[in-house]
Amino acid sequence: MSAIYSLTNPIFTNFAFYAAASTIKMMAMSLLTSRQRLAKNIFANPEDIALGSNKEAKVTLSDPDVERIRRNHLNDIENILPFFVIGALYVATNPTPVVALWHFRVFFFSRIFHTIAYQLALPQPSRSLGFTAGYVATISMAVQLFRALLK
Amino acid sequence: MSAIYSLTNPIFTNFAFYAAASTIKMMAMSLLTSRQRLAKNIFANPEDIALGSNKEAKVTLSDPDVERIRRNHLNDIENILPFFVIGALYVATNPTPVVALWHFRVFFFSRIFHTIAYQLALPQPSRSLGFTAGYVATISMAVQLFRALLK
Amino acid sequence: MSAIYSLTNPIFTNFAFYAAASTIKMMAMSLLTSRQRLAKNIFANPEDIALGSNKEAKVTLSDPDVERIRRNHLNDIENILPFFVIGALYVATNPTPVVALWHFRVFFFSRIFHTIAYQLALPQPSRSLGFTAGYVATISMAVQLFRALLK
Repeated sequence: MSAIYSLTNPIFTNFAFYAAASTIKMMAMSLLTSRQRLAKNIFANPEDIALGSNKEAKVTLSDPDVERIRRNHLNDIENILPFFVIGALYVATNPTPVVALWHFRVFFFSRIFHTIAYQLALPQPSRSLGFTAGYVATISMAVQLFRALLK
Repeated sequence: MSAIYSLTNPIFTNFAFYAAASTIKMMAMSLLTSRQRLAKNIFANPEDIALGSNKEAKVTLSDPDVERIRRNHLNDIENILPFFVIGALYVATNPTPVVALWHFRVFFFSRIFHTIAYQLALPQPSRSLGFTAGYVATISMAVQLFRALLK
Repeated sequence: MSAIYSLTNPIFTNFAFYAAASTIKMMAMSLLTSRQRLAKNIFANPEDIALGSNKEAKVTLSDPDVERIRRNHLNDIENILPFFVIGALYVATNPTPVVALWHFRVFFFSRIFHTIAYQLALPQPSRSLGFTAGYVATISMAVQLFRALLK
């Protein structure tokens, strides 16, 4: 019998792929924030003004374009890290591989869609649907985890 | 010998139970936020106004009721995710099962108490005590982890 | 063959050490925030005023000294938790031990430097360089992880 948490277990490798891809997507929000700050000369700290491209650089925490990316980033943290926690534990329950794979896929693509809907300010409820699909995927794994733990 | 990170290890299954329960509690803050936003017609993005129930829906990031839930959520992120990181590594040190179980229990119930104290605005230091109990449980696991690693 | 995620694997123990140390550093920001709040009598919730040392205690979410620590804390969350996710999965790829160790070290010390640069408001780009070094270490592990997964 091979170990659960190893590259010989396809459930684990699928989880690793989608968990890492979701995390990289989340990390990309940092770069988007930096790009927006530099483009608009808007910074969060007085010492950061030296990074600005001209004398119009200023400190503000209320620029709507920067704050939209920040809220998107925080929403990722609120959802992608719980996906990792619940998903990593769910892998230990040895779920049906194809069922597990679809949970990981639905989660990842729902977060991609959520980001697009957030950054393009698509009409609601598009962003809400993206959020909900990912949320439900995580809750579904948690339900199966609790069932396995309480058996 | 059975694997550390498998459902055959009761230390791991206890950790999985309390880590998942804490994470679900944290995720519930998203639903509380949505419910409060819908109840008060207060949204964070202009496009979200379409979700509001009447024409009084407005965008604000300073509603005290919504922001209280948001701070609670962020405090969960600052504490529950570190509990998962430290706890998952602590399981590898093969601690005494009953000692490990009480660390997990104290953490989880301290966060439940913290949430109640936060949302009901109970007189201080009730919320601070809830925070501290969970914080100390995590630090205690970290101390035992470092001892095992540096031995 | 010994298990990947056990104290018999030096790659895992090195990861455990630096992941836990980074997480404890992140958790220390909570204590810094509390100390600053108590020193300046600045609180986030009305009920917290009872924790203040005199009648000048007040509620505000815009104190620059408190908010600087808060931003530092959030930046840790945005970087240290992804390091844990990617690093934990990277360990499964059985990387060259010394290469893995240097990834963990660069990440940890870059976050220590980032914190010092942030709290002392050192001239930029010092803080940006600290951020970038840790970010690149995590991305490098992710690249190696994806290579192993897609092989």
